[in-house]
Amino acid sequence: MRHNPQRRTALLDAAIEVLAREGSRGLTLRAVDAEAGVPTGTSSNYFTHRAQMLGQIMKRTHERLTPDPARLARTLSAPPTHELVATLLREVHQRMEGDRSSYLAMLELRLEGTRRPELGAEMGRILSAELENNIRFHLEAGLPGDRTDVVLLYVAVHGMIVDDLTVPAVLGGRAPALIDQLTARLLGPAAS
Amino acid sequence: MRHNPQRRTALLDAAIEVLAREGSRGLTLRAVDAEAGVPTGTSSNYFTHRAQMLGQIMKRTHERLTPDPARLARTLSAPPTHELVATLLREVHQRMEGDRSSYLAMLELRLEGTRRPELGAEMGRILSAELENNIRFHLEAGLPGDRTDVVLLYVAVHGMIVDDLTVPAVLGGRAPALIDQLTARLLGPAAS
Repeated sequence: MRHNPQRRTALLDAAIEVLAREGSRGLTLRAVDAEAGVPTGTSSNYFTHRAQMLGQIMKRTHERLTPDPARLARTLSAPPTHELVATLLREVHQRMEGDRSSYLAMLELRLEGTRRPELGAEMGRILSAELENNIRFHLEAGLPGDRTDVVLLYVAVHGMIVDDLTVPAVLGGRAPALIDQLTARLLGPAAS
Repeated sequence: MRHNPQRRTALLDAAIEVLAREGSRGLTLRAVDAEAGVPTGTSSNYFTHRAQMLGQIMKRTHERLTPDPARLARTLSAPPTHELVATLLREVHQRMEGDRSSYLAMLELRLEGTRRPELGAEMGRILSAELENNIRFHLEAGLPGDRTDVVLLYVAVHGMIVDDLTVPAVLGGRAPALIDQLTARLLGPAAS
């Protein structure tokens, strides 16, 4: 049982739905079994306890949110201008819209991480490495802007995503336009 | 009993601590009573149920995070440059550091708002009005930048705050420097 990777992934996907829909309040191994439509007790064959499942949910959301390589390659065939940076960031925002559950689950895990030092430390390692990867990717692709610009773009898009996920009335659908304006103002030809 | 406003505020402050420390999972009227050090049952004299308390917690966090008018007036005595904008935004970040519980409670409420339409709608109204107030304040103070710049600054600082609250390793204490860099690049004399 423990060695069926498809079953494990299906349980983690069910856990993401439970987290997104009911919050960490509702996340129990039993609720995951019910969501996955498997007999009660199945999850406990894969995860020794709830805390152990949390780290694996984080890795699974990360996997689900990784861009499709073919689509990324197509996007990257455009010239390396601030417009291309905007396109890439709009695609990040689109991935959020296409998989709200993964992002909501990540937000729930971020909050759980403030109460579980081990989970918090693991999230710190994963998200820091991801930001470093984004910086390296940006610089190696010859896109305009330096390290600091990449971090500024990251925090701004992160802020937009948290708002659009949780209180969408605040930006009211303006995120894609804001991404264009931010990249033009930070990285466009007229910027310093 | 219902009419003792100090007692009500003390219960809401206790609820903010419970939310920040234990998440919405741990927020029950009984837990609030215990945190406030009052007899079990006290909270239920003030709040008909948990859901009714949530909206009032939101208003209370808002109240706690409002800047001190004297300090704000002192800050605003400086010339209206991009450096002043940076100072104001660093003070927002400092308020988060000085009252992490209120910001963590707000993040918990944002997530609860995705599951409780009434709470979500109320948060939408309050946070949208706050952003509009910030835009008006910025423009009326003659600070550099237009409406869009203010929204871009808002989302970026919001993203930094969420990271520093939940996964501080990602920015590793760089938020104040990032605020300076962002305002200089967006609003400084060399910007378009």
